[in-house]
Amino acid sequence: MGEFDLIARHFTRAAPSGSAVVLGVGDDGALLQPTPGHQLVISSDMLVEGRHFFPGADPERLGHKALAVNLSDLAAMGARPIGFTLALALPEADDTWLAGFAKGLFALADACACPLVGGDTTRGPLNLCITVFGEVLPGRALRRDAALPGDDLWLSGRTGEARLALALRRGEAWARGDLASVAERMDRPTPRLALGQALAGIDGVHAALDVSDGLLGDLGHILRASGVGADVFVDALPVAPALRGLDERHRLDCMVAGGDDYELLFSASTASAPHIDRIGTELGLNVTRIGRLVPAEGLRLIDATGQSRLAQPLGFDHFGSH
Amino acid sequence: MGEFDLIARHFTRAAPSGSAVVLGVGDDGALLQPTPGHQLVISSDMLVEGRHFFPGADPERLGHKALAVNLSDLAAMGARPIGFTLALALPEADDTWLAGFAKGLFALADACACPLVGGDTTRGPLNLCITVFGEVLPGRALRRDAALPGDDLWLSGRTGEARLALALRRGEAWARGDLASVAERMDRPTPRLALGQALAGIDGVHAALDVSDGLLGDLGHILRASGVGADVFVDALPVAPALRGLDERHRLDCMVAGGDDYELLFSASTASAPHIDRIGTELGLNVTRIGRLVPAEGLRLIDATGQSRLAQPLGFDHFGSH
Repeated sequence: MGEFDLIARHFTRAAPSGSAVVLGVGDDGALLQPTPGHQLVISSDMLVEGRHFFPGADPERLGHKALAVNLSDLAAMGARPIGFTLALALPEADDTWLAGFAKGLFALADACACPLVGGDTTRGPLNLCITVFGEVLPGRALRRDAALPGDDLWLSGRTGEARLALALRRGEAWARGDLASVAERMDRPTPRLALGQALAGIDGVHAALDVSDGLLGDLGHILRASGVGADVFVDALPVAPALRGLDERHRLDCMVAGGDDYELLFSASTASAPHIDRIGTELGLNVTRIGRLVPAEGLRLIDATGQSRLAQPLGFDHFGSH
Repeated sequence: MGEFDLIARHFTRAAPSGSAVVLGVGDDGALLQPTPGHQLVISSDMLVEGRHFFPGADPERLGHKALAVNLSDLAAMGARPIGFTLALALPEADDTWLAGFAKGLFALADACACPLVGGDTTRGPLNLCITVFGEVLPGRALRRDAALPGDDLWLSGRTGEARLALALRRGEAWARGDLASVAERMDRPTPRLALGQALAGIDGVHAALDVSDGLLGDLGHILRASGVGADVFVDALPVAPALRGLDERHRLDCMVAGGDDYELLFSASTASAPHIDRIGTELGLNVTRIGRLVPAEGLRLIDATGQSRLAQPLGFDHFGSH
């Protein structure tokens, strides 16, 4: 048995009973029995060392995050997870690293009832590729192209803390604050699965995605796919306490262009607002109306006095590529 | 739009009508409608430059092979493909490379009615991760753990040519022959999808896998999973014309330990033999009875006179790790 077979053992566990898994790791393919009458939702992300995470990143946090960013995509579709595959390229078999990575990965997998069903392990520059599978009732998936003019625009939680954590780690000059208070938002994002599934059950909820590349950039995906515009109420955006010490420009940049937030951004008919508020209360998760969709294309940031705050709100890129 | 969004465009095509794809590339996740009453089969492989393919490998052949090795896993489960995801890390956006890769990839995807449904593109050391999805009727998947003592052992096609191609490319001293006559077996393997699906429909066909790491090593997976042993009739193994010029030891090594063959190895009740022969005839694909499963654990190579040919037939590794 080779080194990489031994590595694979870190990731071989019995599938939990009651799951969709008929046959898990160890055959040519996994065998799943989705719930009858459901559609299958699939998402895949590849994380590369030095690009998506720092070299030497804590393996337990990395295990969590690699799965979390994929589960966040399922959340954004309103899907219930049923399993995932992991393909892993490693420069060497480091048992301590593997144990930490597996611990973070499986803690989140167990918490989200999303078992590992298969994958691959090979030698190579560090690279993590996870593909997640979920299910949703036909017609209930939350798509990017289903937003309607007149919809309210909603945001779960709050944005910007992960971007501040990145800046503090990098020592960017404008960043101030306590890294410890925001590091978890960068390292251990929480996929909003329960929220996504609840929203998918409400007729008036139309479009959704998860905020991974920055609020305004991701909103642009909904606007383009749905052929609508948006007014974003900049003073309604929830401000994390850790961001209050920043100057206004960088605070807003973090919130609307920071990325790595993994909150849900969604549109819904005004009549749905009480349902959405109730879901937020039940889940103990803030949901905030941050704007409104309009027929005219384009995106405006509007302050509490109704004044447009930015002349060129799209293509926001004060941070440059990241 | 960034460089990597442009890359992604090489891989964005409308899903074919009549496919399982409800929503393809471009949202947080793909949406598939599997055929009601079926189980889902999933397999994932990661290919790393310098390990799974030569640096500078022809991109069109690489596109074919990356998908083919995954489809071969579906074939080994008896599944019908319904889609795949591609995650791709590239050191740079080379338009010519991408066009060639996409051409090879989509030619096979179209031939196998297996549409691309999503994925990811990022900068990083060249790495290809494909996850394929298929479907099979409940209880019909061909598993490794279902072989029974008394089963015949069957092989599709023939093995060893890909290993000879590798040796000729590397200039290994023992290798002789015309690279052109065997290169396609290494570069453009044919997933045995029609055979796998036909076998899954026969009650007497019990276990199967695809030969990717060498015939005897892969047979060992069936034997361990099923708790049986095997007698392999070494003189019954089909010999490719290109291997006839090799000395006997290296010819046999190529055939039983070469790898990269992507033929199906399967076990079936003796009563099923006429059905299997008929399927082979209908598909124009040789299927050969190469052995028999026995209750006692272990693996013996037996020649036509009934003599055991190798004292230690398991753990075959004349080539070393590859």
